[in-house]
Amino acid sequence: MPSGGKTSGGENALSALLAFLKDDMHACNRAIVERMQSPVPLIPQLGAHLVAAGGKRLRPLLTLASARLCGYEPGPDRQRHVGLAACVEFIHTATLLHDDVVDESVLRRGLASANAVFGNKASVLVGDFLFARSFQLMTADGSLRVMEILSGASATIAEGEVLQMVVQNDLSTPMERYLEVIHGKTAALFAAACRVGAVIAERCEADELALDAFGTNLGMAFQLVDDALDYAADQAVLGKTVGDDFREGKITLPVLAAYNAGSADDRSFWERVIGRGEQTDEDLSHALALIAQTGAIQTTIDRARQYADAAVDALKVFPESEIRRLMAETVQFTVDRAC
Amino acid sequence: MPSGGKTSGGENALSALLAFLKDDMHACNRAIVERMQSPVPLIPQLGAHLVAAGGKRLRPLLTLASARLCGYEPGPDRQRHVGLAACVEFIHTATLLHDDVVDESVLRRGLASANAVFGNKASVLVGDFLFARSFQLMTADGSLRVMEILSGASATIAEGEVLQMVVQNDLSTPMERYLEVIHGKTAALFAAACRVGAVIAERCEADELALDAFGTNLGMAFQLVDDALDYAADQAVLGKTVGDDFREGKITLPVLAAYNAGSADDRSFWERVIGRGEQTDEDLSHALALIAQTGAIQTTIDRARQYADAAVDALKVFPESEIRRLMAETVQFTVDRAC
Repeated sequence: MPSGGKTSGGENALSALLAFLKDDMHACNRAIVERMQSPVPLIPQLGAHLVAAGGKRLRPLLTLASARLCGYEPGPDRQRHVGLAACVEFIHTATLLHDDVVDESVLRRGLASANAVFGNKASVLVGDFLFARSFQLMTADGSLRVMEILSGASATIAEGEVLQMVVQNDLSTPMERYLEVIHGKTAALFAAACRVGAVIAERCEADELALDAFGTNLGMAFQLVDDALDYAADQAVLGKTVGDDFREGKITLPVLAAYNAGSADDRSFWERVIGRGEQTDEDLSHALALIAQTGAIQTTIDRARQYADAAVDALKVFPESEIRRLMAETVQFTVDRAC
Repeated sequence: MPSGGKTSGGENALSALLAFLKDDMHACNRAIVERMQSPVPLIPQLGAHLVAAGGKRLRPLLTLASARLCGYEPGPDRQRHVGLAACVEFIHTATLLHDDVVDESVLRRGLASANAVFGNKASVLVGDFLFARSFQLMTADGSLRVMEILSGASATIAEGEVLQMVVQNDLSTPMERYLEVIHGKTAALFAAACRVGAVIAERCEADELALDAFGTNLGMAFQLVDDALDYAADQAVLGKTVGDDFREGKITLPVLAAYNAGSADDRSFWERVIGRGEQTDEDLSHALALIAQTGAIQTTIDRARQYADAAVDALKVFPESEIRRLMAETVQFTVDRAC
């Protein structure tokens, strides 16, 4: 990886980036809590549940890091990066709330999901509120360019989510379709989160596009790793139940790779458990065994690494700097968490 | 009613306004179909179901009418009113899709609801897509003022929907709280739909506020009448099942009025069927009888008339004109449909 020397391995790359942008992240967290307020108490209550559940706040961090990389100088009257980072997190949180309803999830980052605690109705409606708030935050920023990027990303996310639902259980889904799904549901927001950093720093279009490519490729890598972890991770590490994707009949690369590389018997198995969604208690462990046999996790991680390399390459239009190095190492961390 | 002479009674007031704005409405309907397009075919499919279900398109009509009232002159390059009318309809449609999921409705305007045909997941996700599209349409309009108004309305709608969920089954809900709910869920978008008409015509703030007041009061009247019809209407007329609100334990003025005016026995009945949601097959007809006895429908319609009068009054800052008269008559029609 052309990411420069590592000062810190593994998980610490993300921690180092967070430490570097500590003040901005604190300001962003304050903005998130503030803008979650409403005269309707259930909204901040559900918001507090989400904040307590934690999460890495990777997407707002990308906005803050991109703005810094582009030389945006924060000041008392220059806090656009903070408002937009909060906006990005609100879009993401709204999507999570609706995802958990759609997927009937009971866990999110190892804690009870909002829909499990507050019910599906509250999750749908508070998700709508957070979407609306994200648009108010964009509007408050005042740049049409920023609004185009973020409202466009919001539409692309929804398209990705619908497409994911459409291909659910369909083992004939071509690889390109799967990549479209993860581009929509994940990479589009990563790209937008990064790109707006260049916009507020008033950089040229080439720099905007470089950050868009960085975010897109990082998002693709991130989602591929996430999809691998769903068949590989220790539940305590991942903060979600292993096999969620399996039980939902989600079409992800580990499944497509194992299906396509499998024997006739293997394919019959996948057609029953994923294609027709007929599962018994023992099926997950057999699925994990087939995935291990066919090297499907490695196939997925290899693909993630290609995207990760492309993400790091995209940063090269920017001069070497501490923030560039930390961003590149964060890409590395994203892939390493699966290994 | 100070609405001027009627050229056409009852339902024809709305038809007359539609006829007057026919070209604009056609352009708006085309924009709705066009902007519903997506590379993901399920999105326009679900959209076509919604378009086929019809509906009066009252909210976009209000944007078109308000723009015309304010002297906005359409032209080949002046179609902002059309884009914003489509935007308003998208916000409304997204809300309907999510409402039907939250309320578990099976009928919408007399046809199977989208969630009944396509499933809850599709309704949640396509609703999100329509929200995102509405924000793209606002962004395409390019006015920050318009975006503030419409993104603010979107947040207020979500707050109103959450509040409605919170007070569900709660017979101690004060009247003011109920009015807050219907302001949020209905009147805020009516107000925004009208107000943006003044903004694009570059009218003064007083005219903006007058149209905001017109829309708010019309929206309040509209929702009160809707709440009355849920306990009074012929299913074929209303296009929804009578007693939906009853079965959901929704707190609406007919119920609050009947509860507050009822005997001790009546109140026990309401506490069981609405408060605790314990209902048998005969309960709806008993509820309808109590509502009739206590004049609760009339109480609701009287209140709607007060708002309707205020809506018509708000128009008086504008000089008399055909469009002003048609808008005032449409207010009248909104209340008359309950009589």
